[in-house]
Amino acid sequence: MPILSKRGIEMPPSPIRKLVPFSETAKKEGRKVYHLNIGQPDIRTPQVAIDAIRNLDKTVLEYSHSAGYESYRRKLASFYQGFGINVDYSQIIVTTGGSEAILFTLMSTMDPGDELIIPEPFYANYNGFAVAAGIKVVPVTSRIEDGFALPPIEAFEKLITPRTKGILICNPNNPTGYLYSKEELEKLRTIVLKHNLYLFSDEVYREFCYDGATHHSVLSLEGLENHTVLFDSVSKRFSACGIRIGAIVSRNQELMTSAMKFAQARLSPPGLGQIAAEAALETPATYFDEVVTEYIGRRNYLVDGLNSIPGVLCPKPKGAFYTTVRLPVDDTEKFAKWLLTDFSHENQTVMLAPASGFYATPGLGKDEVRIAYVLKLEDLKNALECLRIALSVYPGRK
Amino acid sequence: MPILSKRGIEMPPSPIRKLVPFSETAKKEGRKVYHLNIGQPDIRTPQVAIDAIRNLDKTVLEYSHSAGYESYRRKLASFYQGFGINVDYSQIIVTTGGSEAILFTLMSTMDPGDELIIPEPFYANYNGFAVAAGIKVVPVTSRIEDGFALPPIEAFEKLITPRTKGILICNPNNPTGYLYSKEELEKLRTIVLKHNLYLFSDEVYREFCYDGATHHSVLSLEGLENHTVLFDSVSKRFSACGIRIGAIVSRNQELMTSAMKFAQARLSPPGLGQIAAEAALETPATYFDEVVTEYIGRRNYLVDGLNSIPGVLCPKPKGAFYTTVRLPVDDTEKFAKWLLTDFSHENQTVMLAPASGFYATPGLGKDEVRIAYVLKLEDLKNALECLRIALSVYPGRK
Repeated sequence: MPILSKRGIEMPPSPIRKLVPFSETAKKEGRKVYHLNIGQPDIRTPQVAIDAIRNLDKTVLEYSHSAGYESYRRKLASFYQGFGINVDYSQIIVTTGGSEAILFTLMSTMDPGDELIIPEPFYANYNGFAVAAGIKVVPVTSRIEDGFALPPIEAFEKLITPRTKGILICNPNNPTGYLYSKEELEKLRTIVLKHNLYLFSDEVYREFCYDGATHHSVLSLEGLENHTVLFDSVSKRFSACGIRIGAIVSRNQELMTSAMKFAQARLSPPGLGQIAAEAALETPATYFDEVVTEYIGRRNYLVDGLNSIPGVLCPKPKGAFYTTVRLPVDDTEKFAKWLLTDFSHENQTVMLAPASGFYATPGLGKDEVRIAYVLKLEDLKNALECLRIALSVYPGRK
Repeated sequence: MPILSKRGIEMPPSPIRKLVPFSETAKKEGRKVYHLNIGQPDIRTPQVAIDAIRNLDKTVLEYSHSAGYESYRRKLASFYQGFGINVDYSQIIVTTGGSEAILFTLMSTMDPGDELIIPEPFYANYNGFAVAAGIKVVPVTSRIEDGFALPPIEAFEKLITPRTKGILICNPNNPTGYLYSKEELEKLRTIVLKHNLYLFSDEVYREFCYDGATHHSVLSLEGLENHTVLFDSVSKRFSACGIRIGAIVSRNQELMTSAMKFAQARLSPPGLGQIAAEAALETPATYFDEVVTEYIGRRNYLVDGLNSIPGVLCPKPKGAFYTTVRLPVDDTEKFAKWLLTDFSHENQTVMLAPASGFYATPGLGKDEVRIAYVLKLEDLKNALECLRIALSVYPGRK
């Protein structure tokens, strides 16, 4: 048999899927499993998007432009302008989900062996894109005691080498829910200008900001026109994860020209998804008001409930719909597995994402989990009650 | 400004798009341009696929399984079984177009610096995937005098080094239309077994076989279960290029496990496209009969017409909807540009794809073009007339 590639072997499996066989067994045994482990929102996709698909009037489902339909890019540019991000449609490449935006940008800017600094814990699939692109992820640790705020400048500077090409942030953050302040972004500007780095920002959760907090995009940072790249996606914004529509947005024309070559090689982003995404831009503001109100209610309930359990530490995140939580257990991988294999409360249990998969530094995150509050309040209540009881009887409790 | 990556700079632009600015100018000047350069068929997408989209009954456009909807994979497996390819749904990963199938497979099997042998001329975007994956394309030349048949075994063996990991064929071939015979595939079997290589086969044109010729898939080759990988796509089969649905099909479970990790990192293939593709499998056989009849008519008209022009050599391909043609000109890049900038016949002209972009060996293909016969017969007649006149007045005629 021919052998696999080294990278094919090293490619990390998704940490949130490792436990899937155990959850399937639990379901087969008749137990209800509350999924706090995945970011598939239960929110309805806006009706305007669904209607656009149902009213499709094409006879040939042909390629779109490799950068996406121009009509969609023009409307998307207006959408960003509405947030004070001044870009035009030529500074946008529509991609197959945010995933492809990340991959094309990393490939355009970094060579195998180049280093990318990412605050950890971070979205685990960044590891996958890094392996695919052959680049080295260099983690800078943010701490639960600080609410997962941006590490100090000195922590970044210690990690910068001649191979460092960029810094990647996710804002609001998956898996911590942390929303970076204007001051924190200014700090990053200082670093990237001083060391001539790219600043990549994954802002796919930008609509999910709470308590009146404002989202600041890296594209609003002055003097960084050639340094900043925004990764966007409609997946979470419009609860349309399955249409696979994202975007690269940058004012660096040289970079966009390079990314376009990768885009042309794969011909075009999904056409039907673009039709849905373009229509979704007409979604009334009330949709987001309702969604944000719903998530604030869920977050408050969950965070307060978690912090009322002895030994649990849960910061109160200002964005996205995740929170990374410290649990009083020996090892959250064991605990999460035990919940699925050994625990039942009124024939129910909970699936969690152990946080170790979101850290690149070995050993970190062993007492933390990521919780996604994408379930309706009633389910969240039951899930929290399960967790409370489970923690009181788990043999590996600390 | 931070610098681009080496691969971002080296990434080849699509050869069929280099001339786009000139065609746009020609159109602005009011000339009609017949596009013989691109593979966007004018055939209607099957109505069952359009209807499935128009009847969408989802309220949340959620992620599909990373390998694609199980219902679609099961039906796709049945579809292959109908051609005598015995695979089950677990041996299929649904991808975002054939493009992603190629990228994930190359990444799973080859490391940077590894070598992949491809008969040239070949689909130019293979170069893009090779740059993205950091692998080296090693061309083995097929000749127009032989109708672009598979080069002899000795030609392959001369090129095999310790870094050779696989052979990639496209069958039926883009850009030549050549359909490999059973005997040619058996030759490839001998080589891959002897040298323990992968045999990748891009079979996205499998439905386009003419004159009663049978298509032979690499998956039908006995004893190669762990060596062969099929790249598939619904783009051409169902004239649905824009839905971006392809597939990796292989019985090598180790390889599929690796490819799944790449698939999981990008979460899921497009959901709406999968709905269309699944429905399209119900397309009545008469659809293909009509399509094939239409293409045979176009091919016969085109090939006969081309060969009646003095100095033109056009083999008669048995598959796909391309033919690679020798023209009596100094340089087909110059000629193709001249057609757009300097030529007009009754206010019409033709856009061709110079073949040099389909060869990896420098200097080859300078007197060849790829012609796609994706236009209706009437347009093809006008385009051919343009070409005949253009060749009689072109200053660089040989």
